[in-house]
Amino acid sequence: MRERTLIDRLLKPLAGHPAARGLADDAAVLAPPLGRDLVFTHDVLACGIHYLPADPASDIAWKLLAVNLSDLAAMGARPVGVLMGLALSATEDEAWLTAFTGGLKRALDRWEVPLLGGDTVTGLDRAVLGLTAIGQVPAGGALARGGAKPGDDLYVTGTIGDAGLGLAIAKGEAPADKFLLNRFRRPEPRLATGAGLVGLASAAMDVSDGLLIDAERLAAASGVAVDLDLAALPLSDAAAARTARSNEALVERATAGDDYELLFAVAPVRAAEVATLAEASRLRLTRIGAVAEGKGLKIAGIDGETIRPSRLGYEHGT
Amino acid sequence: MRERTLIDRLLKPLAGHPAARGLADDAAVLAPPLGRDLVFTHDVLACGIHYLPADPASDIAWKLLAVNLSDLAAMGARPVGVLMGLALSATEDEAWLTAFTGGLKRALDRWEVPLLGGDTVTGLDRAVLGLTAIGQVPAGGALARGGAKPGDDLYVTGTIGDAGLGLAIAKGEAPADKFLLNRFRRPEPRLATGAGLVGLASAAMDVSDGLLIDAERLAAASGVAVDLDLAALPLSDAAAARTARSNEALVERATAGDDYELLFAVAPVRAAEVATLAEASRLRLTRIGAVAEGKGLKIAGIDGETIRPSRLGYEHGT
Repeated sequence: MRERTLIDRLLKPLAGHPAARGLADDAAVLAPPLGRDLVFTHDVLACGIHYLPADPASDIAWKLLAVNLSDLAAMGARPVGVLMGLALSATEDEAWLTAFTGGLKRALDRWEVPLLGGDTVTGLDRAVLGLTAIGQVPAGGALARGGAKPGDDLYVTGTIGDAGLGLAIAKGEAPADKFLLNRFRRPEPRLATGAGLVGLASAAMDVSDGLLIDAERLAAASGVAVDLDLAALPLSDAAAARTARSNEALVERATAGDDYELLFAVAPVRAAEVATLAEASRLRLTRIGAVAEGKGLKIAGIDGETIRPSRLGYEHGT
Repeated sequence: MRERTLIDRLLKPLAGHPAARGLADDAAVLAPPLGRDLVFTHDVLACGIHYLPADPASDIAWKLLAVNLSDLAAMGARPVGVLMGLALSATEDEAWLTAFTGGLKRALDRWEVPLLGGDTVTGLDRAVLGLTAIGQVPAGGALARGGAKPGDDLYVTGTIGDAGLGLAIAKGEAPADKFLLNRFRRPEPRLATGAGLVGLASAAMDVSDGLLIDAERLAAASGVAVDLDLAALPLSDAAAARTARSNEALVERATAGDDYELLFAVAPVRAAEVATLAEASRLRLTRIGAVAEGKGLKIAGIDGETIRPSRLGYEHGT
């Protein structure tokens, strides 16, 4: 498909917001919302690295948007718009692109965020998909990884480890399960919960590389220690059915990555507000540990003993 | 080089602006300037498509930034910050990355724009470099392609055709010339001139695919005709020395692309302000034609005759 056709036929219909100017100008123009800070993130998904070539194109589009919106959610921000850079190979033919933009439209509609602009390049050996998400948050209210205080409770949204099991299913290495596969292919950015954490959480981040390694990063950014209770790990029913009650099995879930849940710290005195937020955002919020003086991650196994897993999650570039 | 090392050692030093939060959070946070609209653009450069594998890495970084800032300039915007998505292959080794980030630093410093965030991926077959530029413009003042009025004069900044000659030099197809090669590798976004066109130009865009095709696009976006005078084409001394005084040779310059000059329309009554702007921004601003009723591009050759070149510039995806 020609770039011009792709833009005119498949992308322009997604860019109905006035700020996008019908993709007709050199750039998008947006009047920033008053009393808000703007939040910016950019994530890249490469074929064969972040998704499998056989993954449905509509799910790839969903994931490209979702992983970026998850970064906004981690800052407490609501999405304002996105720009997309598509570097495509011959594999991304008309059928693929139609499915991709269809999935993108559903995801944009779902989170009520407009496509504002971007760029398209063809002739690559494999696809590299970049997306910039712009969000807004009450002025001065953006969450950060670095604010956790000794004594805070540590929570995580939703369930952990589903996406790792979903990846195994996608690779044909585990028995099929639609829920788990969907959790890998169509993550849900926790936007409502993230926005609800503004003014409530002392620190927050999204869990993308594995709960354990991300908890360690939150501890390091905050200059504190984190005590994590493996027995408290929230598992979906589908994941629980595939998880032995052993430290080894739970560590596997907590290091699998791609969860796109939020990890956050809240002062214990505000636990009732966390419960209210869970109800309001219809999402399980589980206390999985606490913040302490010191540094590093301390993990308690199912019998309360301290365990030291050989790996905590994905270290980029290793 | 490991992604972590690349980020910590080479990218973090470029992200000193508070909005970047030391690249330590999930996203950047920026308080938008008051009374301004924000402008967003995202362009992708792929190795072997937009630049040659042998091009100096520092120049590739410069160009990645410059082509995006040129889009801001076309909207009359000043840069506020950038996010960068680097998808890298084994070719981009430590020496390459050091040179790349060095060139990026010089370019960021030159245009006083901070790196706010981004993403890095390794393991690709060839590099794909994406950059999102954020700019600001007085509220309601952003320029557009669509505002040219019959009777307006049509101007272009700087000189046209240098980059096309520079590309031929880079490919070893033409005798060396440092100025022309630089014009291909290190384009200058016309930020000061673009900002000066706010409230003055009725339409503007940047010239990236060839002056003729971009002039045709400006005409189409504005719903007008454009009469272009080939004899008025501004050539640098270096380009003039390599350009025969023939329609064919001038058309070659005007269709070569990669100029990153600004094409803009101004009411004739305001010609003195254009002259003042040229002086203030120390940049040649040349009247190359006029806007008329009707549609399409009409090109007058050196003897005043109407000419119809077989191609006008780069059509993406053909």
